[in-house]
Amino acid sequence: MARETFAGVEFLGFDVFGTVVDWRSGVARAAEPFLRRHGLAIDPWRLADDWRALYQPSMERVRSGARPFVRLEILNRENLDAVLAGHGVEPERLPPAELDDLTRAWERLDPWPDAVPGLTRLKQRFAIGPISNGSIAGMMNLARFGGLPWDVILGAELARAYKPQPETYLRSIEAVGLPLERCAMVAAHNGDLAAARPLGLRTVFVRRPREHGPGQTTDLEPDGPWDIVAHSLTEVADALDAP
Amino acid sequence: MARETFAGVEFLGFDVFGTVVDWRSGVARAAEPFLRRHGLAIDPWRLADDWRALYQPSMERVRSGARPFVRLEILNRENLDAVLAGHGVEPERLPPAELDDLTRAWERLDPWPDAVPGLTRLKQRFAIGPISNGSIAGMMNLARFGGLPWDVILGAELARAYKPQPETYLRSIEAVGLPLERCAMVAAHNGDLAAARPLGLRTVFVRRPREHGPGQTTDLEPDGPWDIVAHSLTEVADALDAP
Repeated sequence: MARETFAGVEFLGFDVFGTVVDWRSGVARAAEPFLRRHGLAIDPWRLADDWRALYQPSMERVRSGARPFVRLEILNRENLDAVLAGHGVEPERLPPAELDDLTRAWERLDPWPDAVPGLTRLKQRFAIGPISNGSIAGMMNLARFGGLPWDVILGAELARAYKPQPETYLRSIEAVGLPLERCAMVAAHNGDLAAARPLGLRTVFVRRPREHGPGQTTDLEPDGPWDIVAHSLTEVADALDAP
Repeated sequence: MARETFAGVEFLGFDVFGTVVDWRSGVARAAEPFLRRHGLAIDPWRLADDWRALYQPSMERVRSGARPFVRLEILNRENLDAVLAGHGVEPERLPPAELDDLTRAWERLDPWPDAVPGLTRLKQRFAIGPISNGSIAGMMNLARFGGLPWDVILGAELARAYKPQPETYLRSIEAVGLPLERCAMVAAHNGDLAAARPLGLRTVFVRRPREHGPGQTTDLEPDGPWDIVAHSLTEVADALDAP
């Protein structure tokens, strides 16, 4: 079935945070020495989760028009201050350069073990690129850090709109010069695919049941009529006959 | 000297048509069977040169504001009609799908022999990407055709402005998130470097004395205070101690 649905498809767009890279481990790993150095009694995994929890609300202010588009690293940096403040730490008392550096943890995240092998195979058959809410620089740095073999970087900064707003997908696909039905969105989040599908994109759901750690409750199962459901990007490559 | 000037440099932006790929041979190669099939007595090299000659004037209409920004493939397609008309051929009498396909010759150009080895080495030390007047899709397709290992695709479409307008360089460098002086422009065209240098970018001139064929008269020599002058991208890699 997937083979027929994907007959004319030439481009695969990817969600990145959670789908391709493991943000939780990477952020906790970067936070741990920082917290220790400053004697802050915050669990680094908790910091990662709390930081991630502010991700959607901060983008929502841009989506709603309450503030103009700014790149994700700006939001992440502001959200770090808010997370620290929420734990009773005054961010003004910490060295700004260290807070900036900790924010760059979002550009130094390990790919899931199947990501580089899967993308490398998929790239033989399709053009591939992120359609992420991350910035162009952030995606470029993440790709260089983890060896992600993208052909192009698309997403929120190009569109000046955050997913799941339709503009993010539409402007990204316009930039690759293909009709929407010859492109697919690959994501571990049902909401991402629910936004992409009505626009005409094909959909691929990748299960990432540990994205949010051992207690994850969201996106454990596909909840829409996605064209492919897989446990890994190598399984996606199998389903699409990528060498 | 180059080593000192490039001490903090992290990103290299590249002109592509002429600097990285050999457009003249690629366009002539695609034009030859097309011209033969339609019994058109036009030398394919002449067609390539005539087509290229309309490149700057067509972009100039966008630069001047006489028409809104459109992607380069639109200009190339219009210019093909004009070139054929200039040779006494009515483009309306030719199959549009074939004219579209011939226009895609600009996405199927061979890299110069040193380009892939040179870029592969430079990528070990710097982030690399096109700052070209070509579109995002055009650059992506060209990279997939020739195996160009870009980390990111920047340039005219991102900026909605054609080089040598400052916006093209400035928006591209803004997207990689670095100060201008930590970036360099690599080009075979003095005019490109003359536009980039006053903005703060480092400059690398690559000699491409056959870009325009055996009778080339332009850009044979560097004519500005460029930081590096080389005969190839592998020589650039040597000059910058890239492994």
